[in-house]
Amino acid sequence: MNNAGMDAAPQSQPHVVIVGGGFGGLSAAQALRKAPVRITVIDRNAHHLFQPLLYQVATAALSSSDIAEPIRAILRRQKNAEVLMGEVTGVDKARREVMLRDHAPIPYDHLIIATGARHSYFGRDDWERFAPGLKTLEDARAIRNKLLLAFEGAELEDDPARRQALLTFVVVGGGPTGVEMAGSIAELAYSALPSEYRHFDSRSARIILIQSSNKILQSFPDDLIEKALRDLKRLGVEVRTGEKVDCIDETGVRMKSGEKIASRSVFWAAGVTASAAGRWLEADTDRAGRVWVEPDLSLRDHPEIFVIGDTAHIRDQDLPGIAPVAKQQGHYVAQQIEQLIQGQPALPHFQYRDQGQLATIGRAAAIADFGRLHFDGRLGWILWLIAHIYFLIGFENRLSVMIQWGWSYFTYRRGARLITLQENPEPPS
Amino acid sequence: MNNAGMDAAPQSQPHVVIVGGGFGGLSAAQALRKAPVRITVIDRNAHHLFQPLLYQVATAALSSSDIAEPIRAILRRQKNAEVLMGEVTGVDKARREVMLRDHAPIPYDHLIIATGARHSYFGRDDWERFAPGLKTLEDARAIRNKLLLAFEGAELEDDPARRQALLTFVVVGGGPTGVEMAGSIAELAYSALPSEYRHFDSRSARIILIQSSNKILQSFPDDLIEKALRDLKRLGVEVRTGEKVDCIDETGVRMKSGEKIASRSVFWAAGVTASAAGRWLEADTDRAGRVWVEPDLSLRDHPEIFVIGDTAHIRDQDLPGIAPVAKQQGHYVAQQIEQLIQGQPALPHFQYRDQGQLATIGRAAAIADFGRLHFDGRLGWILWLIAHIYFLIGFENRLSVMIQWGWSYFTYRRGARLITLQENPEPPS
Repeated sequence: MNNAGMDAAPQSQPHVVIVGGGFGGLSAAQALRKAPVRITVIDRNAHHLFQPLLYQVATAALSSSDIAEPIRAILRRQKNAEVLMGEVTGVDKARREVMLRDHAPIPYDHLIIATGARHSYFGRDDWERFAPGLKTLEDARAIRNKLLLAFEGAELEDDPARRQALLTFVVVGGGPTGVEMAGSIAELAYSALPSEYRHFDSRSARIILIQSSNKILQSFPDDLIEKALRDLKRLGVEVRTGEKVDCIDETGVRMKSGEKIASRSVFWAAGVTASAAGRWLEADTDRAGRVWVEPDLSLRDHPEIFVIGDTAHIRDQDLPGIAPVAKQQGHYVAQQIEQLIQGQPALPHFQYRDQGQLATIGRAAAIADFGRLHFDGRLGWILWLIAHIYFLIGFENRLSVMIQWGWSYFTYRRGARLITLQENPEPPS
Repeated sequence: MNNAGMDAAPQSQPHVVIVGGGFGGLSAAQALRKAPVRITVIDRNAHHLFQPLLYQVATAALSSSDIAEPIRAILRRQKNAEVLMGEVTGVDKARREVMLRDHAPIPYDHLIIATGARHSYFGRDDWERFAPGLKTLEDARAIRNKLLLAFEGAELEDDPARRQALLTFVVVGGGPTGVEMAGSIAELAYSALPSEYRHFDSRSARIILIQSSNKILQSFPDDLIEKALRDLKRLGVEVRTGEKVDCIDETGVRMKSGEKIASRSVFWAAGVTASAAGRWLEADTDRAGRVWVEPDLSLRDHPEIFVIGDTAHIRDQDLPGIAPVAKQQGHYVAQQIEQLIQGQPALPHFQYRDQGQLATIGRAAAIADFGRLHFDGRLGWILWLIAHIYFLIGFENRLSVMIQWGWSYFTYRRGARLITLQENPEPPS
């Protein structure tokens, strides 16, 4: 066998194992590119996902491959790193080994857990069947199918009440994901689809955004929230704040007030829970399942184990579950590991540098909060566009996303309106 | 409800029902755009698929949405046409109705069946599990997963024999699809992936193309077949002609000669069978399941029913199962229906106008046969590129495909290397 491409790092170097190839794990791996370590990134999906644009895959604006890239392709030139596609089942802290399904355990000298979060139904997991959430590409494809099949079903449906239930789209949760989903569904129904159906008008669709507290986009300042509400209204989204969901089933949503919203298309964007890392590590977690970590992101009494991103909760700090936090933490723990290896003093505690926040509502409408500077409408949207193109990984992805956005902007149409069947179909009919 | 977008054709006009939105069905629908008829296109997938590039989705060069487009988006401006996503279960010829699963029957005045073909295992359907074929987007995604997971599995595998079985790719069938698949897998293994794995060299992969008769690409002239063999050899594909497969199972392929090829990655491109139209129509079919039709493509004694494309076999004519045949037949039956409706004399028998044939082998290598003019190598490839870009439907698809091909051409990389899990995964790990 030819040996080219196999010049990995020497076996004698410390082994850094990173579980999870999201923003945090990838940032740690990349920050260690010149360090005298061997790196193994373990991920069950083998791809890095640009989650901030996942709602665009769910609403047929982008393709899966536009926002996902194999982790090994991203790290292909980093010779001290290898990628292992596998499913972690636990961590043996005493033996310093990561346990995998169908594979021998992987020993580590330093371990970074960056396995993110998943949507949570606050104990009502039975709602998931009727109100899918959005965290993975599989989730996005399931939501896209549900969304597009609702319109296909409406075209076949003669009963007006059943048709209206198909055309009533309810998004539960008014954070950035919920707002982006609602805005994007509204544009799909009101701008992209109207000329395509013959038995109903897609503009008769209702899009309802439900937020249990009194504010959507709570992390933003009030003036920008007002702008977002204005833009959502202009797009045709009904925003209901201070209303709580009591029950979700196949007929729709029942509110705590007793009101019933008949809907066949409910989507969940209301809460997340951390990955199973707390269980793997037998560590204390907060109510959202995040592992309590020390101010340097290490596990108490285990300076060789770090937990970062959406899976971690630093005592006395409540950081948002967003990409910049995970990236800065990945970079920080990489540096900390280098300090430890080289016998240098430990870094001061992790400090998050707030670089502002962005949320988009729809076509030429976004809000941007940079401390004292607030932007909205078209200018906010341009900033949002630039930031998202800039942070996308890979030149080809950027080009492809720019073209699809440009095309959609000028034509009002969507490029990824594909219903994908799960099962292997019979001959087409 | 708002009525915009619902100005369909008058109910009094003859109803033309087209089953299948592939090349044949779509061409018939579009040719009827100015005819005084109502058209309903029924398709179970709701999208038109550009099948000639399906192998590129299977080998991670293109995304599904690059080669598929919703049929209703293609026909959105054609006001006399509507699209119905549904699964045909039969045809009631006496009542002139198409039967659908979960929907009332659709009455027709004229019926066009254009439901294509599916790969066939010649009675060995148990091979499908181990050697998937390629006819739908779901097939393409299943093959892409199998292909990419073979490389991921090889990275994890310590046993040399098991690793080599993962890295031995066998394509059964030496027609255009088999040749294109084999060439594309060779480029993936030898050019796109070598820098990404640390525990094996992807260039140690073997790609074997098996053809039971003595010639690959049998419909091409001998000089071009020689050129194709030269190009396959240059790419690293082992071509085995005149060798028959005896058995395929999870360990690989056993040849009629007794030779055993250990392979975990076998793909089927050896035969097709027509859709179930023969059963729906209770009509006579040939051995490949194609409905015997009259020289004007109608069903005997049923001038109101036409069968076209891969589902039809005209008595005394054996036409290849390719897009130009289906398109010309779709156009012909549309004209025939117009003649019938307007009380004009029937058209003369359908005559296929051969416009030449193309097959690509890989990067800068294709063969083109235009009767007396033969092209190969780079020039053949440029002709192939132009033809495929030209015939793709939709400006955005063309642009996206051109960019991805350009990017792959200059970087040797692949833009759609995504392993997609079928089930809904647990939190990422």
